[in-house]
This record gives sequence, C-alpha cells and structure tokens, in this order.
Amino acid sequence: MINKLIENIKQTNAPIVVGLDPMLKYVPEQIMKKAYDKCGANLEGAAEAIWQFNKGIIDAVYDLIPAVKPQIAMYEQFGIPGLIVFKKTVDYCKDKDLVVIGDIKRGDIGSTSEAYATGHLGKVKIGDEEFAGFDEDFVTVNPYLGSDGVQPFIDVCAKEKKGIFVLVKTSNKSSGEFQDRKISDAGDRPLYELVGEQVDKWGKQLMGDEYSYVGAVVGATYPEQGKILRELMPKAYILVPGYGAQGGKGADLKHFFNKDGLGAIINSSRGIIAAYQNEKYSRFGASGYADAARAAVIEMRKDISENAL
Amino acid sequence: MINKLIENIKQTNAPIVVGLDPMLKYVPEQIMKKAYDKCGANLEGAAEAIWQFNKGIIDAVYDLIPAVKPQIAMYEQFGIPGLIVFKKTVDYCKDKDLVVIGDIKRGDIGSTSEAYATGHLGKVKIGDEEFAGFDEDFVTVNPYLGSDGVQPFIDVCAKEKKGIFVLVKTSNKSSGEFQDRKISDAGDRPLYELVGEQVDKWGKQLMGDEYSYVGAVVGATYPEQGKILRELMPKAYILVPGYGAQGGKGADLKHFFNKDGLGAIINSSRGIIAAYQNEKYSRFGASGYADAARAAVIEMRKDISENAL
Repeated sequence: MINKLIENIKQTNAPIVVGLDPMLKYVPEQIMKKAYDKCGANLEGAAEAIWQFNKGIIDAVYDLIPAVKPQIAMYEQFGIPGLIVFKKTVDYCKDKDLVVIGDIKRGDIGSTSEAYATGHLGKVKIGDEEFAGFDEDFVTVNPYLGSDGVQPFIDVCAKEKKGIFVLVKTSNKSSGEFQDRKISDAGDRPLYELVGEQVDKWGKQLMGDEYSYVGAVVGATYPEQGKILRELMPKAYILVPGYGAQGGKGADLKHFFNKDGLGAIINSSRGIIAAYQNEKYSRFGASGYADAARAAVIEMRKDISENAL
Repeated sequence: MINKLIENIKQTNAPIVVGLDPMLKYVPEQIMKKAYDKCGANLEGAAEAIWQFNKGIIDAVYDLIPAVKPQIAMYEQFGIPGLIVFKKTVDYCKDKDLVVIGDIKRGDIGSTSEAYATGHLGKVKIGDEEFAGFDEDFVTVNPYLGSDGVQPFIDVCAKEKKGIFVLVKTSNKSSGEFQDRKISDAGDRPLYELVGEQVDKWGKQLMGDEYSYVGAVVGATYPEQGKILRELMPKAYILVPGYGAQGGKGADLKHFFNKDGLGAIINSSRGIIAAYQNEKYSRFGASGYADAARAAVIEMRKDISENAL
C-alpha cells in the first residue's frame, strides 16, 4: 500500500491528502435540510448530512489527489450512525482509487492492539471465513505504550500489505508538553527524536520498494523538528498535519521531503473541505462548496510545488 | 460520576472492575452456534455471540461489583456490528446500575478530542436537541498529545459530571520504552511521573466530594511506580489493569490505595470473563462460564481485601 500511495502521488503530482473531518457547521444548509427531511433531525440525519457532504467533496477532488484521511472522531461523535458513514466514506474513496488513511490514533497493548489492527486494517476470522471491519489502507497509531502496542499493527500490516503512521511530533501547541521533554540518558535529546528512531527501527521490518510501510506523523507547525526527524527516519513516509488552517505554510514543508521529492504527504482538512467559508473562496457560495474545495486543492498543490519541493 | 463510582465501591465492598474484553475464543460453543444460526457466521453473528456472552457475565456478577470496563477494541474488530454490541453492552450495564468505564484510549487535539469526548461522554447538538452517541460514564485517555488533547475531555466531563482516566504508566512489558525515560530538566525523573503530576493538576479543576473526576491508569505490574504515583496524585482515582492474567497479585496493590481504603479500582478481564477456561474453575465447564466468572470475582474480592487493603 505504501507503493500504491507513492504511485498515486507521482501520478497526481500532488503530495496532498484531504482530511475528511466534517463538522455540521461546514455542511451547507440545503444538504442539512434534505438529510433531516429524509432521516429526521437526529444522529441518523446528522450522519446522512455528513455523508452527502463528503460525497460532494470526494466527487469534486478525487482526480487531483492521491489519498484521503477521514478523522474517525468526527464520525464517532454521532455514535453508530456516524461510524456507518465513516465506513461508507472509506469504501467510497477506495472505489475512487484513493488511498485511505484512517486517522484513528489508536494504541493499546498486545491482543487489544491486535484487535484494533484487525478491525481497521485486517480481517477477523469467523467460522471458516475472514471478514473486514473497516478496511482502511493505513491508520495512525499512538506510540505512548511502546513496542508491544505498535508491533501488533505492524504484524497485521505485513500480512495485508498495509501501513501505519506513528505519532511522533504532533502539530498542536502543547505537543511539546511531553513530546519535547529532554531525555537524560539519550544525550538530552527530546522524546520525539527517540520515538522517531523507533519508527525507523520498526520500519526496517517492513519495507516497500522505496519507503517503509511504517510512517510517521510530524506537524507542519514544527519545521525545524521536521528537518531533524527527516534525517532520523529516511525511509519513513511523513504524514504532515497542520498545513493551512493550523498555520503551516508551503515553505515550512521543505525539509519534510527527501531529495527524491518524495517522503512526505501533506494533510489539509478544514482548509479544503470548508474552503467556501473562507473569504478567499466565498465566491463559490455554500452551494459551490465542492468546487471551492477543488479550487483549494489546486492552490495547495501549487503552493507545495512552488515552495516546498 | 466519581462520587457514584465511590458509592458503588463502598456498597459492594469491592474495588473491582470487570473488563468486558470478549474474544471469540472465550465464547462457549453453544452460544456461538446459536448466534451463527440466528445471524450467520459473519460479523453480525460474531457480534451477537459476544453480546449473549456479555449478557451472561453481567447477569452473573452485576450485584457484586461497582463497575465494568468494556474494551472497545474487542468490539471494533467486528466493525459496525461489533460497535452496536459495544453500545448495547454500555446501556445494559448502566441499566444494572453499574458505572461504565469505556476503555477507548482516545486522544487527539482540539476539536478532534472534543468530538471523541462528545461521542463517548457528552451529547452532540443536532437541530434543537441533544443526542448521546455512546454515553459511557468514564473513558480512558492517552496523554501523548499534551494538555490541548486532554482539556476537551475535561470540559465535557465538567458539563456532564463524568470522568476520565489518563494513561500514566501502563501495565505492559514495553511501557517503559517511552514512559520510563528520564527527563533531564525534571531532576532525572521518569516521564510517567511528569504525566502523573499533570493528572494531579488537571484533576484540581474538577473535583468530586473526595476524589477528582480526572483519574489515572497505572498497571498492577509496576507496584513501586504505583507507590510514587499514589503520592503524586493523591486525589486521582487509579484504574489498575494487569491484575490476574497479566501477573499482578493482591499484595502488589497495597500502595495503589490511599489510607482511606479508597483511591484505586482494580481491573480484571480475562481472569474473570474467561475464568472457566482456567484449570482452577474448570469444574464449571463451558455452560457454567457465567458462574465461573462469579466465583472468580468473589475470589478476587477476597484477595484484594485480605492482601491489598
């Protein structure tokens, strides 16, 4: 799947992932109304609105991008109906030949991590057959519990030819609270470097043609740290959140890429899916939300190819 | 909800939480067969088997215990049908007046953490009404992303009078890989102590009568660390996994409790729900799996009251 991701990136010439993190406040009123009329103003109706909204976005941008990253929290907040729409979104994107990165940030130990990996990347054996639960192509994983939390994901990836992105240095303001703490028996280097080194180690177990199936998450908002981590994990694809609405710019992304122009994929969520609410794209209006998203993808691609690559 | 948890613990005289982490290999064949006959040997059938299994366990032990901890990964592995059973299990346990700790180990940033908190502890506003997604009483939270990942959970807890348990020192073997690293600008103390101090700080924002709504997870397998953390977070309830099947014993738990005999709640999952597969309880047989679970709870209560309190 890492080979497929890279192939998609080369084909689209866009190291971009669109974050499908819908919130009700992004959904144009007309879609809202239709969904409530159909299902009621309840969890089912909200989920239906999200689904129709997503579909519009995906239809408008799928030919421009290699991958999408649905953020499961935004679906989980609507309970079961929300998760049904998460699954529908995953399937719909895969039908459009997009690589699907489930942003699930799961992480537990032993058989519990194995269950998460099975549910999101693998198949569970029932009777004599195997069944997939959510069936994303990649998922994000939290490393706080250490190797025995991450290894079960790697094992399922090896079987399924799928991949993970491990949280290393996240894009938020207080990511430094624990991630930046200096480790005395590691030459006073920050914790995220140690996690990065571990990603490199984990990744060596499971290599694709050019890059590993084990990638990392490093926020666009920390370009200096990105530079160091790029060197520590030369074979890890870096999934970079924090571009756009969170403040990261094209020029900040230079060091996330390797010399081959590969090695990083930049996420934008709100900046694309809610572009029509941004003054810059307000000409599209609410009914043109999907076209606004397309325009925002094109501009993001331009910003990255001119300033980052 | 922390007051209710403590009240339940006092009433049952059992600082015990039963981990509802069902695996298909625990489910007696007769239940399996019935579920497959009803729904097919597929995700729905497996989820139905898990549901019937859970119901048997809950009916057999609910009067002895204050709380349950369903591990969502074990349901998520069966996709949507699994999560429907997770929700049914939460509701069923709440009807039995049990406190429900959703072991979800979620953690993200800003609006994303807010969405998780809303989905699992809060209510989402749709039109003029509010709807609950999963509606647990407590959830477990991963701290790796720092305060802006945890605060949205605390905010929802404040509104709903619910609580969280933050992962501090987990019970697994490689938990030390990152959690034990010594922080040079904190007097060479390990990371988990810093996380513990932060739990104490977060917890001060949201106090119940005796303890905070913000608790911590510390593994029974690390009694020495538990002793230090008990002192660093005097008002935090400690949720202690790792008892029983993972190797923790009653005597290891002494220091997790405060002098008031409160402050800790000990989880056992496999050791109870799959007790009938243990030689010690094999006399119950597969058809007596629920009675075996009851016997295991009674013995666990005895072990804790004799050796830990």
